Amino acid sequence: MSDPAASGPVTIALDAMGGDRAPEMVLEGAEIARTHHPDVHFLIVGDEARIAPLLAKRPALAAVSVIRHAADVITNEDKPSAALRSGRNSSMRLAIDAVAAGEAQCVVSAGNTGALMATAKIVFKTLPGIDRPAIASFFPTLRGESVMLDLGANIECDAENLVQFAIMGSVFAKAVLGLVDPTVGLLNVGSEALKGPDPVRDAAAKLREIEFPGRFEGFVEGDDIPAGKVDVVVTDGFSGNIALKTAEGTAKLYATWLRHSFRSSWLASLGYLLARGAFRRLRHRTDPRQYNGALFLGLNGICVKSHGGTDGEGFAHAIDVGVDLVIHGFNDKVKQEFSRFEGARNGDDSASTGPTTAPIGIEQPQ
Amino acid sequence: MSDPAASGPVTIALDAMGGDRAPEMVLEGAEIARTHHPDVHFLIVGDEARIAPLLAKRPALAAVSVIRHAADVITNEDKPSAALRSGRNSSMRLAIDAVAAGEAQCVVSAGNTGALMATAKIVFKTLPGIDRPAIASFFPTLRGESVMLDLGANIECDAENLVQFAIMGSVFAKAVLGLVDPTVGLLNVGSEALKGPDPVRDAAAKLREIEFPGRFEGFVEGDDIPAGKVDVVVTDGFSGNIALKTAEGTAKLYATWLRHSFRSSWLASLGYLLARGAFRRLRHRTDPRQYNGALFLGLNGICVKSHGGTDGEGFAHAIDVGVDLVIHGFNDKVKQEFSRFEGARNGDDSASTGPTTAPIGIEQPQ
Repeated sequence: MSDPAASGPVTIALDAMGGDRAPEMVLEGAEIARTHHPDVHFLIVGDEARIAPLLAKRPALAAVSVIRHAADVITNEDKPSAALRSGRNSSMRLAIDAVAAGEAQCVVSAGNTGALMATAKIVFKTLPGIDRPAIASFFPTLRGESVMLDLGANIECDAENLVQFAIMGSVFAKAVLGLVDPTVGLLNVGSEALKGPDPVRDAAAKLREIEFPGRFEGFVEGDDIPAGKVDVVVTDGFSGNIALKTAEGTAKLYATWLRHSFRSSWLASLGYLLARGAFRRLRHRTDPRQYNGALFLGLNGICVKSHGGTDGEGFAHAIDVGVDLVIHGFNDKVKQEFSRFEGARNGDDSASTGPTTAPIGIEQPQ
Repeated sequence: MSDPAASGPVTIALDAMGGDRAPEMVLEGAEIARTHHPDVHFLIVGDEARIAPLLAKRPALAAVSVIRHAADVITNEDKPSAALRSGRNSSMRLAIDAVAAGEAQCVVSAGNTGALMATAKIVFKTLPGIDRPAIASFFPTLRGESVMLDLGANIECDAENLVQFAIMGSVFAKAVLGLVDPTVGLLNVGSEALKGPDPVRDAAAKLREIEFPGRFEGFVEGDDIPAGKVDVVVTDGFSGNIALKTAEGTAKLYATWLRHSFRSSWLASLGYLLARGAFRRLRHRTDPRQYNGALFLGLNGICVKSHGGTDGEGFAHAIDVGVDLVIHGFNDKVKQEFSRFEGARNGDDSASTGPTTAPIGIEQPQ
């Protein structure tokens, strides 16, 4: 496994064949990201016959890129198990393998989420103490940005999974967002202690017991997510995915209504013209490409999942997220924080003993 | 049980003590609703000493209202079991009892949702074939309005519960929204058949097998809800509650950003002034009071739950929803449709045999 904070140029492995508009969209994204990070190199993994002519048209990108041929493609219809079994020569797999081999420090893919998670989990392995990795992403809020996890990797979660997600999310908020004392909430249908499914209530009880690396604020509800009530929202992958997509759809609905309202009279249209700048700022703020790039937390390697339907701008943002994680030595910080937390749990204040393989602070579920 | 379509004036039983700003808010709501439905009478149930002087200040409302004293109040902190055990003289219970006794045709309460559901279930009983009632509400979409259920009555649901909700939702869309062939979707994290938790996948399989009173469209995702992809969205109460509240919170976030954008420059402010009418229409469209009033579907009596934090306008809307249900003989139509569906399931096309008590078309879960 590569050292994410190693000196030398950062190389990002790109799954060139993942996403609705791949490989063109991936190359366009890389070209845009290159202007943000001129020192970054790219390992572009996919069908060489298709990629080479496209790359030749982008000489600036070609100068910092290497193509690695991959004969196969994982499609969105492939089951994760099939991707694992027969996808060893796929662009997705070879891009992940390149990170495991230390040839790149991060992989970015807009391909099949389930296959990407399953492959990354098998190749990278989970961090010590983590049973299941989670998908995390930023979420725009009234107070700025929050992090939410899990967003779909784990459809059903027990209390221990949720506790681990809470710890990972808090450590992530500290290490990457630079928050000193991040607030963490468990997503539920009410703030009272007696509400909700057993795993959620049990996880809350555990989080109140253990020495938690952040401030556990108890339960939060759906409307608390966009309100930014906590820095980290923890939930199972089913509810998290639904909440995220409902929020995206609602923002689209509101934007459509707004557009219709301003087309309803000539006075409104004139108002729209005068306020163009305000609308541009609003559009920028609510642009889903601004939030593109979901992280797989809990893995011993950096993997960023881009939305499959995004364009070059959106894919560039996902690359930017990956580059930031590499530059800030994100995974090392998570490991350090985690082992510090583990050390404290084991009555040892030193982080130098490194992480143990024991589950984190709570008993195994019966 | 009263006949909802009975001739004579409609009487609505109001839990005058439920809601953050009760009883004033309840009386204000009734006064507003009265202007929409001048023939409706109110049975105002609660603390007579507090209600009487407030009602005296509203002579038009007083002319169509009767106060029924209730010594107790169910608070939001009361467990549903406690409300059932010791709440027999509460305003909520006595309002529900009045409907059961035929003195009123519908109860509206802004009180404790769990207590209201538990009490209504005990007093009204569920409709034949329904194991658990569900909370349903309208949801604004790009195409108009959809219905979503369950919104929090059942935190965990098995496949049979979801199938029953789908049937109830479809029948509701036919009977109340007047749709000929309503489309129904199961909320999930992907549209592929292999995705999601077991109960959701099993429910989809069942809904494809049975003679479904509507058009079952398979799985829908979070963003399909505000897009209006289907007329009826079916989910468990945990995800449904989270989706609903996330949508509400996101609409608030968007509205706040919009306001900030237009305050950012004098040109934008001028644009805002010119487009005031457009903003007013948008505000009206997104006003949560417009969608206030959740229905308890599957009960043998009409019960509408208002948001606890609403004001008089919002509470009036919840009353309006209840009055509409009574006037259109909603519960009778649901029963008729249901027994027709049951009849067809039992190989009998006539609805005259009435509903049976057998579970609907699917086996009992193991």
